[in-house]
Formats: sequence, structure tokens, C-alpha cells
Amino acid sequence: MSLPPIAALADIPALADTLPVEDRAAADAARARQNSLTKPPGSLGRLEQLAEFMAAWRGTARPEIWRAQALVFAGNHGICAQGVNPYPQEVTAQMVANFERGGAAINQLCAVNGADLTVIALELGRPTADFTEGPAMSETDCLDAFWQGASAVDDGADVLILGEMGIGNSTVAAALASACFGGPVAEWVGPGTGSDKAGINRKVDAIERGLKRHDAILGNPMAVLAALGGREQAAICGAVLAARAARIPVILDGFICTAAAAVLYAADKRLLDHCLVGHVSAEPGHRKLLAAIHKRPVLEFDMRLGEGSGAALALGILRAALACHNGMATFGEAGVSGA
Amino acid sequence: MSLPPIAALADIPALADTLPVEDRAAADAARARQNSLTKPPGSLGRLEQLAEFMAAWRGTARPEIWRAQALVFAGNHGICAQGVNPYPQEVTAQMVANFERGGAAINQLCAVNGADLTVIALELGRPTADFTEGPAMSETDCLDAFWQGASAVDDGADVLILGEMGIGNSTVAAALASACFGGPVAEWVGPGTGSDKAGINRKVDAIERGLKRHDAILGNPMAVLAALGGREQAAICGAVLAARAARIPVILDGFICTAAAAVLYAADKRLLDHCLVGHVSAEPGHRKLLAAIHKRPVLEFDMRLGEGSGAALALGILRAALACHNGMATFGEAGVSGA
Repeated sequence: MSLPPIAALADIPALADTLPVEDRAAADAARARQNSLTKPPGSLGRLEQLAEFMAAWRGTARPEIWRAQALVFAGNHGICAQGVNPYPQEVTAQMVANFERGGAAINQLCAVNGADLTVIALELGRPTADFTEGPAMSETDCLDAFWQGASAVDDGADVLILGEMGIGNSTVAAALASACFGGPVAEWVGPGTGSDKAGINRKVDAIERGLKRHDAILGNPMAVLAALGGREQAAICGAVLAARAARIPVILDGFICTAAAAVLYAADKRLLDHCLVGHVSAEPGHRKLLAAIHKRPVLEFDMRLGEGSGAALALGILRAALACHNGMATFGEAGVSGA
Repeated sequence: MSLPPIAALADIPALADTLPVEDRAAADAARARQNSLTKPPGSLGRLEQLAEFMAAWRGTARPEIWRAQALVFAGNHGICAQGVNPYPQEVTAQMVANFERGGAAINQLCAVNGADLTVIALELGRPTADFTEGPAMSETDCLDAFWQGASAVDDGADVLILGEMGIGNSTVAAALASACFGGPVAEWVGPGTGSDKAGINRKVDAIERGLKRHDAILGNPMAVLAALGGREQAAICGAVLAARAARIPVILDGFICTAAAAVLYAADKRLLDHCLVGHVSAEPGHRKLLAAIHKRPVLEFDMRLGEGSGAALALGILRAALACHNGMATFGEAGVSGA
């Protein structure tokens, strides 16, 4: 299926009632196969769980990855006016150019793990508004970005890797997480690309003012996405749901990517059932966020780059899991004695 | 250089004085390159550290993996007479046949991550002696196996993955770790391929009797290798040192592989400076062993299969690290502004 048309952000949570769900029969068949392979049962640990997860979402006991799609969405943010990032905002476009020339980490990681990368720059010349002064996006702008994300998903992919680039967007991520999951703002804020203590304090202060300004809509995650989010965050939400409609499992990246998708979790937790998180970032809020959305990361590698880099690294692990699942002999085939 | 001839096990520890050491200049040049790449410094986390490690041992600022060699050594163990393993001893040869036909996990993981696998069966029809009754191996047998391991290393490899197969060898590993690092035997013993509580108790009891019998040599790690080890453990030690002589970094696998190499650490801790540990096993003694030899595993994936599977999985991460290190553009090349 394709993602049904959405006329308003408020229509998104109810998609959880109509989008595809896990295929338990396929997952059970994958589990039975794992238990027949030439190894002690369970001895491949999380590789076995990943194979079952892929089976559940692809709807087959023997899932394969023929096409891995990677989408990186880039946006610019009005909140940079509050001095929340040490890099100039031009870096977003400069990095998009770097992605397009193949010079960034995500290019190398997609190449080494066999993912097709598409980078989508979302109106970089027209940053969102400063959320301390008003909503970052109108509903129309937010829906536009959502649909750019959704329409970028290739229905023929077997797995989707998501990433982002946007100077200032670790502040946006912390604002979304604060709004959706509560708790002290400072616990969601970290150095991002490299803020010092004063920079971190500016981030906390900007978010606290933003939360106060938008206090009336904080109980409504989709309204929070427009008020405090950015275009790449909305696009990630669209891509996550379009993937779900096509039963394509998603690998989320670090703090910023996860915070975007977590808005969907806050709206209806079932909306992220088809998502893995590729790694836990060194950005301190990520661990708290993973606890809030009940996801265990695939990798823990002290990375904090974004761009989809942790998700693309995890793709290699997923390929390894399926290589074992599909390629190993069973005890019967190999003539190996059991316990 | 090649590994110099060793006439006696007692000659091994002193190799630490003559074998190659890290090339700090190459590592520093790799660090400088990492700091120039288009990302916030340090944001690739442990991938950056892996690139530096490879630079230090390959002696170049831009290390590459053209050839990854995987060696899996298999042996049989007299200690099986003590009922320490739920699988029959024939499974060792059956699994070697499975490796040779390409049906095991290690075959799939080597294929997906680009390693050339060689499996070396070490006199499977002549198991070692039961170490509760006497030394598992004579010095001659132990040195023979050591040299089989050493001579299997391809000097043209850029990285070496080590693994093992041998019914009963989680008991051998726990015995080696107990002898080399002390502490309660029960803390080194786990379920292995799937022992129940009674089986674990039999393992502990057998090891305690073995330690008592060989009490006189417990302060001598190389003598411990012969008395309590097995052929695949001796071969792993030989391969680790032959790799060191050729400046080839090694990726050790789980508890059993690490316990074999840890004998070298106990003899002289410098002997494992060129070794990574691919993963921390679900076998409980592995975490304790990694603390004893001061190694942080690359992956934590709840695996407990052996065969080199965790090391081969980690090879994919190492390839990703070098892909970023060698393929990314610098800030200057990409025209990206700094902080």
C-alpha cells in the first residue's frame, strides 16, 4: 500500500490503526529456521533477533536485502538566531554539496554497506522561523516537508536508512524531545556539533523560552512538530510512515533523527514498530530518548555525527544477520549431531 | 619480519622485546587526517580510534584492507571425558566439514565482510589428554600446534581474524583464564554451547581438579598452555605472534579465542598490543577476561558461537572505519566552513 493522503497533521496519529503490522507467522517461521541452523540455539544473539525483525516486516521467513535506500534530509533553522551552534548556517548547504560530491562520512558508509544514497535539501534558503518567537513552520510548510519525505521513499527498497543534516538541529531535536517526553530541558541538551558550556546554556534557554511560548500545544505531538520542529524532522516523519505503508523496515540514526521520529511515537507508539535505531549517539539526550521510546540501539560506538552515519553502519550488521539466516546449513543438511 | 624460530615454549615471552611495536608517527598522522575531515572532530567516535589503530600497526597514515585473512583452528579435548559438554565430540569434525562446505555462520560472515577463510583441523582423531589426569599436551605437541598456527598466517594480509572450534573448549578456556588470572573458578565458567546447571558444576569441578593437579606450574603461562590448553589454543597463540611479526593487526573472537591469546598477555602484556577483540560474548567469563587484559570489545551483540563469528562481524566495522578515513573529503577539499 501507499501512505494514504493526509490533509492535516492531526490526521497522522490515526494511521496507526490502518498501516501494516508485523507478520507474526513469518517471524515465527524465521525463528524456527534459526533454531534449525548449525549453531547452538540463540548463539548468534542479536543477529537472530534482527533476522526475525526483518522477517516480521518483510512478511517472509527468508528476508533479503536487495535494495537498501538511504535518505538524508537537510534543513535550516530559525533558532540559529539564538546562537545555538558554533558553525555558520551556510555549512548546511556546504555539507549538502559535500554529500553530492561523495566526500562525507555517509557517502563512504553507504558505499561500504551497499546503500543507495539520496540527499534532499529542503528549502535551505528559507529557514524555518525562530521558535522562541512563533511557530517554526506553518501547518502547510510542515505538511509539505512531510510529503517530500514520504514521496522520496522507494517502494522497492527492502530497508530504509534515515539521516539528517541541519546546522542548529540538535537544539530542534532537544526541543521536540522536551515537548513530547517532558523532564528537565537540560537533560535533553548536549554539545551537538561541539557547543561549549555557554553554548549549551544558550540552547537550554532557547528551548525553555520556546516551550513557554508554545505551551498551549505541548500535549499535541503533531502540532509540536510544526511549532518546534524543522523541515528535515517533518520529512523524516513522512519517510517513516511511507516506509511502514510499504512494509519497509527503517533504521533510524542518532539523537536528531530519532527525536524527529519520536514525535510519531508520542502520537501513537505503534507508529515506530517497524523502526530500528542504528546506534546510540554520544549526544547525551539520545540514551534518554531511546528509553522513552523503548528502543535498544543496534550499535554503541560513541558517534555523534548525524547524516545517517550510525544507521548506515548498522546496515552492515543487518546484512550480516541475513547472510547467516539465509546462507547457513541446517543440522539436517550438514549432518551435524545435536546436543 | 617473520616470527623467529622458538625452540621451547619458555622462549615465547621474550619475543615481546624484539617484535614490532606501534608506529606512533603513522598513528599521529592518521589522527591529524581525522581532524581535517568534514565532520566535527571526534564525531565518528570509535571509528576514528579504529583507523588510528590500523595506522599504528600497518605503519601508514592511510591504512587499507586489501586482504583480510580468517583462520579457524579446530581441536579435540580429553577433558570431554569429564562430561563437560552436551554435544558429542564428533561434532568438532562435523563442524569442520560444515565449514569446508560453506554452511556455518563463519562462512557467511567472512563472505559478507570480505575475508578469506581457512579452517585448520589439528589432529582431531588424537584429542589432547584429560587435564585432570595429567598435562593436556606435551611441550612438543604444544609447539607443533603453535607452529601450525604461526605458519598459517599470510604475511600479505592486512588484518587477521582468529576463531576456533572444539567441543569441550569452553572448559579449556575457563581453565586457562583461571590459571592465568586467578579468582573463583565459577566466575570463569558459563554454559558454553548450552550446559545446564549440572553441566556447569561438572566444568567447575573438572577445572578445580586440573588446577590442583598442575599447581606447580600455574605461575608459568606458557607451561599452563601445554598443561591445560589444547591444540587450537596453541595455534591461536602462534598465529597472534606471527601476525605481530608481520605488523598485521588481529581481531580476536569471543571467550575461547580471547582466553587462548590471554595466555600471551599473562606471559607479557605487550604481546597483545596489536590485537582487537571483536565482540564481548554472552559467555559470562568473557567480560571478566576483557577486564583482565584491558581490552574494550568492538561489538556487544550477545553472541556466543565462536568460530571467529564475532571477529568476522567486527571486520565490517573496521572496513567502515577505513572507508571513512580514506574516502572522506577534508574541510579544505570540500570548501566547508569550520566552527
